[in-house]
Order: sequence, then C-alpha cells, then structure tokens
Amino acid sequence: MSDISAPTLHTKKFVNDPANFVPEMLEGLALANSDTLKYIPEYNIIHRADRPVEDKVSVIQGSGSGHEPAHVMAVGPGMLDAACPGGVFSAPPMEYVYECTKLMNTSKGVLHLINNYQGDRMCWDMAREMSETDGIKIGTVIIDDDVSVENSTYTTGRRGVAGNFFVIKACGAAAEMGKELEELVGIGRKVNDNVRSMGMALGGCTPPAKGEPLFVLGDDEIEVGIGIHGEPGRRRDRMKPADAIVEELFEAVASDIPFERGDNVGLMINGLGGTPISELYLLYRKAALLAKDRGYNVIQNYIGEYCTSLEMPGFSITIVRLDEELESLMKAPASVPIRVFA
Amino acid sequence: MSDISAPTLHTKKFVNDPANFVPEMLEGLALANSDTLKYIPEYNIIHRADRPVEDKVSVIQGSGSGHEPAHVMAVGPGMLDAACPGGVFSAPPMEYVYECTKLMNTSKGVLHLINNYQGDRMCWDMAREMSETDGIKIGTVIIDDDVSVENSTYTTGRRGVAGNFFVIKACGAAAEMGKELEELVGIGRKVNDNVRSMGMALGGCTPPAKGEPLFVLGDDEIEVGIGIHGEPGRRRDRMKPADAIVEELFEAVASDIPFERGDNVGLMINGLGGTPISELYLLYRKAALLAKDRGYNVIQNYIGEYCTSLEMPGFSITIVRLDEELESLMKAPASVPIRVFA
Repeated sequence: MSDISAPTLHTKKFVNDPANFVPEMLEGLALANSDTLKYIPEYNIIHRADRPVEDKVSVIQGSGSGHEPAHVMAVGPGMLDAACPGGVFSAPPMEYVYECTKLMNTSKGVLHLINNYQGDRMCWDMAREMSETDGIKIGTVIIDDDVSVENSTYTTGRRGVAGNFFVIKACGAAAEMGKELEELVGIGRKVNDNVRSMGMALGGCTPPAKGEPLFVLGDDEIEVGIGIHGEPGRRRDRMKPADAIVEELFEAVASDIPFERGDNVGLMINGLGGTPISELYLLYRKAALLAKDRGYNVIQNYIGEYCTSLEMPGFSITIVRLDEELESLMKAPASVPIRVFA
Repeated sequence: MSDISAPTLHTKKFVNDPANFVPEMLEGLALANSDTLKYIPEYNIIHRADRPVEDKVSVIQGSGSGHEPAHVMAVGPGMLDAACPGGVFSAPPMEYVYECTKLMNTSKGVLHLINNYQGDRMCWDMAREMSETDGIKIGTVIIDDDVSVENSTYTTGRRGVAGNFFVIKACGAAAEMGKELEELVGIGRKVNDNVRSMGMALGGCTPPAKGEPLFVLGDDEIEVGIGIHGEPGRRRDRMKPADAIVEELFEAVASDIPFERGDNVGLMINGLGGTPISELYLLYRKAALLAKDRGYNVIQNYIGEYCTSLEMPGFSITIVRLDEELESLMKAPASVPIRVFA
C-alpha cells in the first residue's frame, strides 16, 4: 500500500496512555455525576451513590468496555445499581465481579445480568460461587439475543448484544418495584426469550491498545451479522442502499422467534459508534414501515446508541415482544447519567 | 494511491437516493414521534403537534441539515416549537422559513434563532421582511460562539456552532414561561454573549450527495478549530494525546470572554458525529479538571452529541457562563424526541 496515510486514518483516537483508557473514561463519568454516582477505581466499579438499600434486589452487570453507553452509563434509578466493566473488549476480572457483588449485597440478593461470551460467563460463574459461599443470594440471567450466528469467536451459542438493554430496563424497573430475586430472574429470562437482534458494519474499529483496526472492509464491502467485538457475521456482501440493508436485518430478526402480526413490540435502531444519528433515523424509517407492513404495533421505539463497538460505523436492529407486564416495565421511570437536552 | 479501497471506506453511508437523505431522515423522526410531532414534507418542517398556542412566543430555527440532533431533534417542550432545515450543509430556502414562521405565528410573535452563516442570514432576513409585511412580530437572535477564527468560508464574523444549544434551551424555557418576544431576544443575546466554543477533527466527513470526504487529513494530522461544515480552522497540527488537545481547546475557549475564577458555568463536550461516547467522557475528564484548576464551578455538564458534522470524528468544547437567570433556564424542564433509556 503506497498510501500510508489512509489506514491510520481509522486509528486516530482520543486517548492518553491506552492502559488508562477505561479508568479515564470512568473518571470522566464520575466527575460528570459526582452527586449520584460513586467510582471505585480499584475494581472499575461505578455504582449508584444511594445503593445498596436493604429492601431491594441489586442489579449489576460487568462485561467488556468499548460498548458504551452499555453498561456503565446504564447505572441509575430503574436501571443498574452498579457496573464493573473489564478492559476494552475483555471480561472483567473475577474479583471485580465478586467485590461488586459484595458491595451491592442486600438481604434480597443480587441479580447478575451476563452477556453470553465465554469470558464473561467464566468470571461471573466463579464470582457467583464465591458469593454464594459467603451466603449471598445470587440470581443469574444470560443474554443471547443475536440471531446472526450460532457459536462465534468468543461464544458458545448466540452472542449477547443490544437486547441486553431491554433486560436491564425490565429487571431494573421490577427491582425498583420491590420484586424478589426469583421474580426478577423470571422477568429477565422472559425478556431474553422475546428479544432478537442483528447488526452489520461498514468498517472496523480500533481498540486503543491495539492501535490498528480489528478488521478492514473493502471500498464496497459490508459485514452482515457483525459481532460487537468485530467477530465475523454471516457473510460479507457488497454495499447496498440503506433500505435493502434494513430489509435483510429486519427479516432475519423478525423471522427468528418468529414475531407475529398483532404483536406489540419495541423497535430499536442501535448505532455501533461511528454512525451519525441522521442516518439512524433514516434507517428507522424503513424499519418502522416494515413493522407496519407485517402488522406489528410498535409501542416503543429506541433510536440512538445503546450498545456500541467503539467507533465502528454500522448499526443493529432489535425487536422485542412486549406483553402487558413488559410494556409497563419498559415505560417505568428510569434515569441514567447520559443527559440529552434537559 | 494503489490502495483504492481505503479512501472509499470513509464514503460508505446509509443512504438510498442522496436527494432523499434529509426527507427520509425527517420521515423517520416523524414516524418515531407520531403522537408529538408533525412533519410537513413540502417545507421540511418538523413542529410540535400542540403548537402554536396563542399565549406563547413560538421559537423556531432552520439551518443546514447534517448537524443532528441540532436542530430538528431539538423540537419539543421547553425547546424549539418548530424547525425547517435545508439540505445537508445548506441553508433552508427562504420559503421554508417564511412558511414555518406563518405556521407558528401567534399574537406574541415568532423568535428566529439564526446561526451566523451568510446563507442562513440571507434567507432568514428575507423571510423576516416578508413576515413583517404580513404583520407578524419577529425577534431575531444571531449565534456566533465559535472562537476558532474571525470570518470563514461561509461566514462573516464568527461561526455559530454548539453554543446554539444553550440559546435554544434558554429561549425555549423562557418562552414556555410566557415571556414576551423582546425579553426572549434579550435572553438569547445574553446567552450568546456568554458562550464560547471551539472544535477539532481527526478526519473529514462525506456529504451524501458529494460522495467523497470534504477534506482528508494525513495519518498523524488533526485540524484545530474545524468548522462544522469542514471549514478550515486555525491550523493543522500533529496528533497529540487527548489531554493535550483538550488543554488547547479549553484555553482558547476560556480565555476568549474571558471566563473568570468563581464563574458558574455549563461545560459541554460535543461529539462531531463519529467519536464514540467512551472517548467523549475521557475528554470530559480533562476538561472538568481544567475547570476546577481555574476555579470555575461546573454546575451543568453536557457530554454527547449536540451539534454534529455528519460522521466527522472530532469534538468541540463549549463553556457558557450562567448567572442565576440562565442557570434556572438551563435547569427548566425540557423534552426532545431523542430518548435515551426511558
């Protein structure tokens, strides 16, 4: 390649020492929310300053960083009580999870929400065992909403992606209402049974410590079914008009459960980090029209960034079926550190 | 360049016919908010479904598209009553502004919030004249918060960038409280007098109809003082650690009014479209520490995307000085079509 400048265009990032990328991000988050969040640098823990409380199950999560706002920026009333992320695209060390669990423990127990990656499963399993030995009640929900592929680079079974948000929202709201641990596990599993996602990318992303893109796509190539750590999807394809891309993803997601005419659904267009919101709304337009054609009632919509892959250009579609219970949980009050206009 | 794939990596976008980029985005926005927003395709107008009302000044804006969420996604209670954007990076036709003004007219008048670009000024001036001939009361506030350069590619004087958000927020809140047109003009001008911004980019962006980047930076180059349409800034520089970049922008912004020890301020890190929120929080960390060093009291912070430049990787810093009146307006209730977690 004689054009030495071009590949590196993708690798310029706002970073100081790459080893401090996650701590500095977390410090920024804590500085911006000093009245509501506490930050424990030793274990990458961000927790609600007013949690734990005794009459409520604590809901926690910790997966790789690089997917923000998931999940450290989902800590707040009606959402997570705490999060303990690992480094970029790597599971948290077991002791982070164990310390976070102990810190958030209440007599009602602690709910672990775990995305289905081998690294995450292993550290959360070990931390659960240690916590249970300490007498802490633990409930577990595994999220695996990505219909793209069975098994993947870091996964046995399906990957957990943006559907995670709906599990957090439902369990967070139900925990706030005082539900018991077993009920929350049931709610979380019901959401996971009713939510499906699929993503695609126009290009790769560059982890700070790696300094080069995870993968490179050609000038007219896209990756259909991409994972949020750059894992390969179903196939590479040629670039297409936006509506054609939405059609393929929507069909793959909708036909999986399958969703049915008359279903009340939540419909999400999730940006992967590098796609502007203007394009996300253009994509939502087609998804909403397809939902109407199929007779789904979109009672909640979500357009923005929920589960990203650093600065990856791309998006995912998530559809969740909402019965009355889940609808009320989705519409329950929630507050997160990310402010928009108010 | 033998690597033919690389340049085009930047030009892949989610688009159908480029001529429909803005209408399809607006249609998506309307579909996602069918209960609260109305869309008038003929004039690119997005307006609150419950506006105008007689006892309230209407607040409207319309500049180029490609800066979303500014400003069509800032239409809502306590913010704009309507917006009438032009095409990507181009001012709205005069008749869009005129029709939008007539549609939102009330006995208390219509406030025009105008970013300081020659194209915008011209169409809003003409529309104001026509509206006044019709007997409509018009107030005007010009926003020119960018300290980077005096005069620019499309501007005489300074450019209007993310500081616009604070003008919208203050005037939108004050209008909701029933203030008169003249008072709103005073409030808007006070905000503009007390807000300063500066941005920088790691790379360019690609307008849909152009199909190639507005400008290209080398592998180790950045543009300091970039405009939101790719206008040149103060200079090109070599890539630096994130904290060093924040220091330069913060110093340029802080020294302009200048802000002073003891000032109550709002501090914004605004992503330009292609920079992930993880990096924005890392950048906010340094800005918050610098504000503390200088003795500014950060009473409101804003971290995310407010005024973008399509998918441009980069950010801007905005500082606004908040007296008691402006602080209460910034903290007043507001609601916009962009939902995060609730």
